[in-house]
Amino acid sequence: MINNKQQRLVIATTQLQNQQIFLTDSQKHYLVKVLRLTKGNRFIAMDGKGSWWLSELAENLTEATIIESIAIKTELPISVTLIIAMPKGNGFEQIISGATELGVTSIIPVNSDRTLLHPSPQKLERWRRIAQESAEQSERQIVPTILDPLDFTTSLEQIINDNTYRYICIARGDIPHLLNSLPTEQLLENTDKITNYQPPSIVIATGPEGGWTPSEIEQAKAAEFQPVSLGKRILRAITAPIVALSLVSSALEAKI
Amino acid sequence: MINNKQQRLVIATTQLQNQQIFLTDSQKHYLVKVLRLTKGNRFIAMDGKGSWWLSELAENLTEATIIESIAIKTELPISVTLIIAMPKGNGFEQIISGATELGVTSIIPVNSDRTLLHPSPQKLERWRRIAQESAEQSERQIVPTILDPLDFTTSLEQIINDNTYRYICIARGDIPHLLNSLPTEQLLENTDKITNYQPPSIVIATGPEGGWTPSEIEQAKAAEFQPVSLGKRILRAITAPIVALSLVSSALEAKI
Repeated sequence: MINNKQQRLVIATTQLQNQQIFLTDSQKHYLVKVLRLTKGNRFIAMDGKGSWWLSELAENLTEATIIESIAIKTELPISVTLIIAMPKGNGFEQIISGATELGVTSIIPVNSDRTLLHPSPQKLERWRRIAQESAEQSERQIVPTILDPLDFTTSLEQIINDNTYRYICIARGDIPHLLNSLPTEQLLENTDKITNYQPPSIVIATGPEGGWTPSEIEQAKAAEFQPVSLGKRILRAITAPIVALSLVSSALEAKI
Repeated sequence: MINNKQQRLVIATTQLQNQQIFLTDSQKHYLVKVLRLTKGNRFIAMDGKGSWWLSELAENLTEATIIESIAIKTELPISVTLIIAMPKGNGFEQIISGATELGVTSIIPVNSDRTLLHPSPQKLERWRRIAQESAEQSERQIVPTILDPLDFTTSLEQIINDNTYRYICIARGDIPHLLNSLPTEQLLENTDKITNYQPPSIVIATGPEGGWTPSEIEQAKAAEFQPVSLGKRILRAITAPIVALSLVSSALEAKI
């Protein structure tokens, strides 16, 4: 059996030749610098079309070898990352449980202008244990990755896949609803005939109590995040990520 | 200012003549027997097209007089009721907060085959206070009604509007996704030209930890509830109602 704590990486099928994966520079950076993998470490490569492979990082750190393919039953078809401003109190544990149940691929806890937390290593360990338990209870194959906390600005730069749909949830203002903004057809199109197909990913950011500051919203827009609404009412910081992920995972699964 | 704790009642515009509302037998039963209103008590009549009226029950208890119309900004266009198996522990308070933030009209806590709770009057009072606080924080105009707990079977009979879309969320099995089952177009169609238009309502039931029993699912089907899925993973009892209401309120608001 695979170790279901493996990290995931989205690859294009063109990167794959004879059971070898040729990593791009940004993928290598992500695996080696962000996830701190080293030679011989394993991760899961996913092609965005439903194929997942257990893979092992080669000695040169720029290639990986496919060990075996993985049968996926309850995972979302594409990678979904949640960037979330860490709330005060214990609310984050609820968010991790709910997001895991909804199929999230990875969670990036961030410090924002309105919240500044420095969780202890024990706290991070606890968060990852909650993700593991929730993954088991919700019958997932894979445990979501919870990254070490980052500054919000830094988190915006963690996107390594060009074909990523990016959203930042905003409480007020006349902006499109997330449900209208998800490109469901593009996400689920039959891609077998497309050469050089880049599988899509989704990244969605939800803010702290009090919301993102105007400066944070501007930074996100500059990083090609689309501002979206989750409805007419003001959601708490612990409700918003669950609502956002409900819409994303339902849009991905309802149409299949 | 209106007292925003008023209960709501869906009426057909044909029931309205010269500022008087002529109640049907089942509406009268609901107001007088279920909600225990008496002459002179006020409620909110909503026509499912965006018009809401503060109304006062007449002495004969079969008519009501319109006091004034109410401007609605952050409420859902139609009535959405959540039937929910009461979970053990404090999870129900989280559900009330989240459901209120998502615009729920009323919540019916039920005892199911797998859960049996008899909340004290103080507990019920606390639940209603949480609904009030969440309504204020999420900037709603109206506080959701939390009914006294019922047996699940009895709750299935509380539907007084013929044009009600009924759903029961089920964790396993090859059943349609809720997002595919919501009749968005019918719910939001332009009804100005339809005579004898019955405004629609939605009722959605989510189960306890361990799920509904087969017998409960059969009872719900007999009461014209449609079994629906919330995705491929198993959701906790406190996550499922938030996911279900996320989809309902987004389907109602995203397309407007």
